[in-house]
This record gives sequence, C-alpha cells and structure tokens, in this order.
Amino acid sequence: MKKIEAVIKPFKLDEVKEALHEVGLQGITVVEAKGFGRQKGHTELYRGAEYVVDFLPKVKIELVCEDSVAERAVEAIMNAARTGRIGDGKIFISTIEEVIRIRTGERGADAV
Amino acid sequence: MKKIEAVIKPFKLDEVKEALHEVGLQGITVVEAKGFGRQKGHTELYRGAEYVVDFLPKVKIELVCEDSVAERAVEAIMNAARTGRIGDGKIFISTIEEVIRIRTGERGADAV
Amino acid sequence: MKKIEAVIKPFKLDEVKEALHEVGLQGITVVEAKGFGRQKGHTELYRGAEYVVDFLPKVKIELVCEDSVAERAVEAIMNAARTGRIGDGKIFISTIEEVIRIRTGERGADAV
Ligand SMILES: Nc1ncnc2c1ncn2[C@@H]1O[C@H](COP(=O)(O)OP(=O)(O)OP(=O)(O)O)[C@@H](O)[C@H]1O
Ligand SMILES: Nc1ncnc2c1ncn2[C@@H]1O[C@H](COP(=O)(O)OP(=O)(O)OP(=O)(O)O)[C@@H](O)[C@H]1O
Ligand SMILES: Nc1ncnc2c1ncn2[C@@H]1O[C@H](COP(=O)(O)OP(=O)(O)OP(=O)(O)O)[C@@H](O)[C@H]1O
Ligand SMILES: [Mg+2]
Ligand SMILES: [Mg+2]
Ligand SMILES: [Mg+2]
Repeated sequence: MKKIEAVIKPFKLDEVKEALHEVGLQGITVVEAKGFGRQKGHTELYRGAEYVVDFLPKVKIELVCEDSVAERAVEAIMNAARTGRIGDGKIFISTIEEVIRIRTGERGADAV
Repeated sequence: MKKIEAVIKPFKLDEVKEALHEVGLQGITVVEAKGFGRQKGHTELYRGAEYVVDFLPKVKIELVCEDSVAERAVEAIMNAARTGRIGDGKIFISTIEEVIRIRTGERGADAV
Repeated sequence: MKKIEAVIKPFKLDEVKEALHEVGLQGITVVEAKGFGRQKGHTELYRGAEYVVDFLPKVKIELVCEDSVAERAVEAIMNAARTGRIGDGKIFISTIEEVIRIRTGERGADAV
C-alpha cells in the first residue's frame, strides 16, 4: 500500500477532491498546514510597509491506496492542483505496511 | 520502530487516549483533520434543504512505538474507537527508522 | 529521500526554521498539534484548583530532504529546539520513495 501526501494551495482542495473521486479514490484525510518551499515565502506590501510572509497557508492531503492506483492518484492531484505559478505544492509517496478499517476489523487491501 | 496513525471520530479521543495509557504507551501526537471514506461524507438535512457534507471532522493520532507493542496499540485503538457505525476510522502502520528525544539526545528504543 | 518529522514547542518554531535555513534546507511544512510524552502532560494550578493538562500544544514540522543532508537537518532541529526542560520534543525519521514538484512535474532529488 502507498501513502500519498500532497501539500497544495488551499483553494485547490475542491478540485483535487473531485479529481480523486473521478479516478475512484474513496478516502482522504486533510489537515490545515503552513509552509514554504524554495522561495522561502515572499515579500508582501501591506499598508505601505514590506513584510516577509515566510509561512504561507497550505493544506495537506493524505491518502492511502493500493500500489496499482498510486500513479493514477498522483496524476490526478498534479493536474488538479497545478496553476503554473510558484507554490503549487509537493507530493510525497511512501509505503504503508498495514491498513485497518476500524468498524469492520478488515485489514489490508479490503480495508483501504 | 512503528508509526501508527489513526483517523478517528473526535469524541473518541479521550477513550482512545485512556486505552493507550492502559497498554503502557507513553507518547502521542494529535492533529485536527477532516476527511471522508467510502461514503464520501453523507447527506444532511438542514432547515429543510439537503446538503452534502463531504468532509467530516476527524482527529488524527500519531504514535511511534517499538515493533513489539504495535499490535497491542492497534487493538487498544480499535476497541476504544469503534462505535459500530460508519465513519469509525482507519489505522495506518508504517516504519520509522530513527527516533530522537530532543532533550537528552537519546536515539532508538530509549528515545521513544 | 528522508522525511524528518519533529514535534517541538511552539515558541521554538522560528529558531528551528532559521537553523534549517542555515544548513540550506529549502522546504518545510508545519501543522499545529497537541500531545504528551512520558510525563503525560502535567498538573497545573488554575484559580486555586489543580487541573491535569494532559495534552499540551505542540507544532509538528515535516521536511523531506536528500539522505545526505538528513543528519545535518536533525542536528539543526535538535540544537534549535532544545531548552533542556521536559517536553522539548521528538524527531522521527522515515523513508520517502518519491517526491514530485507539482508546478514543474520534476521528480526525485530535483523536486525536493
Ligand atoms: N522539502 C519539503 N519538505 C516538506 N514540505 C515541503 C518541501 N518543499 C515544499 N514543501 C511544502 O510544499 C509547499 C509548497 O511548496 P512549493 O510548491 O513552493 O515548492 P517549491 O520547490 O518552492 O516549488 P515552486 O518553485 O513551484 O514554488 C510549501 O509551502 C511546503 O509546505
Ligand atoms: N484511504 C484513505 N486514506 C486516507 N484517509 C482515509 C482513507 N480512508 C479513510 N480515511 C480517513 O478516515 C476517516 C474515516 O474513514 P471511514 O471510517 O469512514 O472509512 P470507510 O472505509 O468509509 O469505513 P466505514 O464503512 O466504516 O465508514 C475518513 O474521514 C478519512 O479522514
Ligand atoms: N512516542 C511518541 N509518538 C508520537 N508522538 C510523541 C511520542 N513521544 C512524544 N511525542 C510527541 O512529542 C511531544 C513532546 O514529547 P516529550 O519531549 O515530552 O517526550 P518525552 O519522552 O516525555 O521527553 P522529556 O522527558 O524530555 O519530556 C509530545 O507532546 C508528543 O506530541
Ligand atoms: Mg515555492
Ligand atoms: Mg466511511
Ligand atoms: Mg515529556
């Protein structure tokens, strides 16, 4: 099983969610986050003064899926989250060894 | 070392915490989240109109423990978090390679 | 690629961020959390009565980096986050298999 974590722009959450539905993904978890990438935030003008806004609001999506659908999920997230401007986000993929569905006690692929 | 992530119903946090104490688990981290599983949220009636509530509030618990206690932790979470109704949650298990306790600099099993 | 997760005291976030910049780390994600370690929170006096404050506010930092810089990142976090008092936090290291930079589609080391 794979865990896909995507840190994206908050206003893109709905589009990413729809894109994941369309490829058949059934479960996701979302957490509010803040972060920065290579630009270390940016400088913003506010009431005539410049502020360095180093942490920008992001959302982190986590989804666990079978290996065979992970690449499809990644493509769906990339296409839906991309605006072409800096800060579009990152996707991280790792391995999950076991999944348990609490209500039924199912484990593994049946539980995802 | 194992990392156990559990996405559960928020009102179950206290019971899960107690159950983990009882099996001797000493550290947990909790993050507010929202998510959906197979039912993609549900439909709710509000002032006569139907709304699709697709993201429901959840909490995500993360705990890192030695391999030998992971299964006990999973059982404790399952038993405490289960209501028997949809949305009870999911548990994900993965591997952590190294743990460091910042105050003491200890690493590995001593640090958990 | 490695993922470094650090649960630290919230007022230490700025110092940790600076320390990571100084060793050349370019991206981090931060999430508000609450948690406890071995002391299971502590007892606090409030208006004459004692309360057990079991969950204390923490922040969780997540950063993904190349293997070769992971140890430097860990040292930077440890040094910046340590106060020498209980509750200084924990660092967890795991493996990330793939990283994708959404704007450019880059993968792997170029994408971090
Ligand atoms: N190496 C990293 N580790 C953890 N989180 C990261 C990392 N890089 C980026 N992030 C998270 O992803 C968010 C978006 O990153 P961002 O898209 O700005 O990356 P970037 O490499 O600067 O690419 P771009 O040049 O397109 O902006 C950041 O705000 C941060 O939360
Ligand atoms: N595959 C998944 N990846 C990431 N998070 C998930 C996944 N499945 C579920 N979750 C998280 O767990 C929460 C609870 O899921 P839920 O218990 O509804 O799963 P389910 O498969 O629909 O089971 P049930 O039929 O018992 O409701 C979701 O709101 C979501 O936050
Ligand atoms: N095993 C663990 N799994 C997940 N999170 C943990 C674990 N241990 C600690 N944490 C998180 O790290 C935070 C800080 O832990 P803390 O530094 O108090 O650990 P400790 O082992 O009690 O060390 P100390 O004796 O220095 O206080 C906790 O509030 C919790 O969020
Ligand atoms: Mg950027
Ligand atoms: Mg469900
Ligand atoms: Mg402690």
